[in-house]
Amino acid sequence: MKKELLYLKIADAVEHQIKNNVLKVGDKLPSIRTICKERGVSVSTATQAYLELDKRGLVEVKNKSGYYVSYAHQHFKKLASVSQPKMVKNANNMEDVMRMIVENFGKSKIQLSSAHLSPDLVPIKKINSALLLATKTLADSGVTYNTEGSIKLKKNIAKRALSWGGKLNYEDVITTAGCTDAYAFCLMALTQRGDTIAVESPTYFGFLRLAHQLGLNVIELPTHPVHGVDIGSLTKLMKAKKIKLCLLTTNYSNPMGGCMTSESKRELVKVAEKYNVPIVEDDVYGELSFSIQRPDTCKTYDDSGIVLYCNSFSKTLVSGYRVGWLLPGKFKAEVARVKHYRTMYNSIITHEAIGNFMEIGRYDLHIRKLRTEIYNNYLNLQRAISLYFPDDTKVAHPQGGLNLWIEFNKKFDAIGLYNKAILNKISITPGRIYTLQNQFNNCIRLCYGQKWDAERENALKLLGKLAKG
Amino acid sequence: MKKELLYLKIADAVEHQIKNNVLKVGDKLPSIRTICKERGVSVSTATQAYLELDKRGLVEVKNKSGYYVSYAHQHFKKLASVSQPKMVKNANNMEDVMRMIVENFGKSKIQLSSAHLSPDLVPIKKINSALLLATKTLADSGVTYNTEGSIKLKKNIAKRALSWGGKLNYEDVITTAGCTDAYAFCLMALTQRGDTIAVESPTYFGFLRLAHQLGLNVIELPTHPVHGVDIGSLTKLMKAKKIKLCLLTTNYSNPMGGCMTSESKRELVKVAEKYNVPIVEDDVYGELSFSIQRPDTCKTYDDSGIVLYCNSFSKTLVSGYRVGWLLPGKFKAEVARVKHYRTMYNSIITHEAIGNFMEIGRYDLHIRKLRTEIYNNYLNLQRAISLYFPDDTKVAHPQGGLNLWIEFNKKFDAIGLYNKAILNKISITPGRIYTLQNQFNNCIRLCYGQKWDAERENALKLLGKLAKG
Repeated sequence: MKKELLYLKIADAVEHQIKNNVLKVGDKLPSIRTICKERGVSVSTATQAYLELDKRGLVEVKNKSGYYVSYAHQHFKKLASVSQPKMVKNANNMEDVMRMIVENFGKSKIQLSSAHLSPDLVPIKKINSALLLATKTLADSGVTYNTEGSIKLKKNIAKRALSWGGKLNYEDVITTAGCTDAYAFCLMALTQRGDTIAVESPTYFGFLRLAHQLGLNVIELPTHPVHGVDIGSLTKLMKAKKIKLCLLTTNYSNPMGGCMTSESKRELVKVAEKYNVPIVEDDVYGELSFSIQRPDTCKTYDDSGIVLYCNSFSKTLVSGYRVGWLLPGKFKAEVARVKHYRTMYNSIITHEAIGNFMEIGRYDLHIRKLRTEIYNNYLNLQRAISLYFPDDTKVAHPQGGLNLWIEFNKKFDAIGLYNKAILNKISITPGRIYTLQNQFNNCIRLCYGQKWDAERENALKLLGKLAKG
Repeated sequence: MKKELLYLKIADAVEHQIKNNVLKVGDKLPSIRTICKERGVSVSTATQAYLELDKRGLVEVKNKSGYYVSYAHQHFKKLASVSQPKMVKNANNMEDVMRMIVENFGKSKIQLSSAHLSPDLVPIKKINSALLLATKTLADSGVTYNTEGSIKLKKNIAKRALSWGGKLNYEDVITTAGCTDAYAFCLMALTQRGDTIAVESPTYFGFLRLAHQLGLNVIELPTHPVHGVDIGSLTKLMKAKKIKLCLLTTNYSNPMGGCMTSESKRELVKVAEKYNVPIVEDDVYGELSFSIQRPDTCKTYDDSGIVLYCNSFSKTLVSGYRVGWLLPGKFKAEVARVKHYRTMYNSIITHEAIGNFMEIGRYDLHIRKLRTEIYNNYLNLQRAISLYFPDDTKVAHPQGGLNLWIEFNKKFDAIGLYNKAILNKISITPGRIYTLQNQFNNCIRLCYGQKWDAERENALKLLGKLAKG
């Protein structure tokens, strides 16, 4: 086994013990020397394992007397509630709240509302090199029209799909300007004005706004903060032919952070095939697992092509380039036609740059490092909430992604907190924009894609103070 | 006066004499020495002027005996007809023909169907430098989300708007992914399903497909191959409140190549203001004038903000980057909201690259050179059609742009010609895709954005043979 994997294996084993209370907060960990003896590894590997645990916020060093299990994870708040939306068609909008937020863009100094990576988590120099290289690897430096897009990017996407069990050829991939275009093309291809679609509740506001623009009705589904959407409810809708398709973020969803189990995914695909209801699957957060392995997808279990899989590099690498893709399954002709209708073709140079970046294996390495960083940010955020927020605050317990869903007591006014926060130049997102119904008025979403520092710690402290009233 | 302008002035004067038959085909031109004496210029300036005329296809050198007025321009075919569409609402589609064309993408070797520049007309190295520079001029090399877009690009667009009489601040500009997004956002912001819009006839197929997708009815307007859309008909529709907006390519339209006069533009804006009917103005070909000055726009005469002006760099500089923009007039809030709905934000690095390219004055220089090249291509295309096509062929006489509209006799089957051409690996565009009505079945569009060479000459020869049957 590679040394690199060895230290991670040790760290994971210790993390497992901590999370399962085999090791408790304040417990002293085995010494480096003990680890070396027990595991038969070098001092450097054992040290690296403990540094890793330190990074993850799980252990701390005390006065050179050794490593101890740290405070953070034990004090997580209670789990946020399973959502109970009304299971009726809905074509309303949350445009008023949305407009207020858009108008306040740029007014905040501390960004807790944006599900993106801060620049210090992006390998900027290497991306620039890959971009420069793209002017050489593309015919005519990519200055002219292209109908096929970057083949190099498509091939690397197909290759990497193995990580979630996808078996693809590059011809299965349609590249797009970000994931926004990917899922929009799917909805445009498969729905007509007046149709009904099903989504999680809460769900990404972009889905709701698009549905509104396309004149679609929306049914919101009960959703668990850990396991995601309720398959039973969704199956009933499919069986009763009440929906044209479902649009789900199956891994580390936005905003709740839930992740469907492999069993649920497999089951859902079976049902979708049976009732012939397409699943539009958004997997933009799937790579951002807190552990070494990323979760699988509905597409993993899709033999018939009923799943339209959408993804991008906006959450994992370079949001500024707007590079996304989709696997349209058996709806390739329809989706390709809509893409041609709406955008003709994409800017190829940024697509090729990411293809180049992936080609030399930098993406794997980047994602591995990123997972640790994100996890560390997350632990810090949980710790800060535990320290500063009201005692009756509940939170989701995501295992990946960039979003933390926070539920205050039932009478809490989240939009009020949003307004107070923005006056203090802190941006958060009120729960109301993630639904078309009158719910989540006591919820907010905070993001942890930005490196943790003293400024963020203070912002959370202030936010807690404001929340306490 | 700069030497550069001096030689162009001489060339223009001679061209004027040729076009007005002061100098006739076969006439010997004054010797270089005579020009030097008469105009008081150097031998090199006089020679440059004649080389310029040679480039424009207007003169030729005969056995070192001097320059002669050449064959080409005199043999242009008769002017294509003014269109006479039925002035009724129409929501059909030309999707069958369109699908056939899309399926044949990539089957042609000789591209006569694509309104873009060939790579040899694009300053690739300088664009690459501007892109590399963008990784330095943008904060964090443009890898992260941006809500405002490239300010540098917006400032340069505002500056250059002076060339058509536009008085702008950079805040008036909304940047987009190509002109496709620009006009799409305008239509999405200002229309509802079931509304009716007015367009030229023939008009760009992209307009018709978008209207179809948005569920809009289309009224096609009588259009002159030289002066563009018929203002009288359009005024009547506005007055009768029959249309929600009009969508026009005011300069060197696609496919007919007509250009509205300044008087028509001014008049149309007045009427639009009076009846409060927005004009969505597409100006993607406006820069590609065959003469030194580009034409003005409807926006030039727009004091009230009733004009939504759309443009891009796809026809003039770098189609592969997908950089467009729009001036939304008084509809800024609505259009900005739709943009946020549909794309959130754009890839900023390619936008900044063009901003950098413009900043150092390279765009002006490039456009000046490009106009001569395009004009030369156009003259060659007219000459080839004159030589090889059936005698009763009529053509439009564009004064700029990239499109030539060709009308065969009434019984001619343009789709038949399309099919024969594609079997010979030549791509052309049948007239039928530029209308929702049963017309233009005897017309085709050919493009001259590609450098003229022996291969193209032979393709035209073959196309003529196929057209003769």
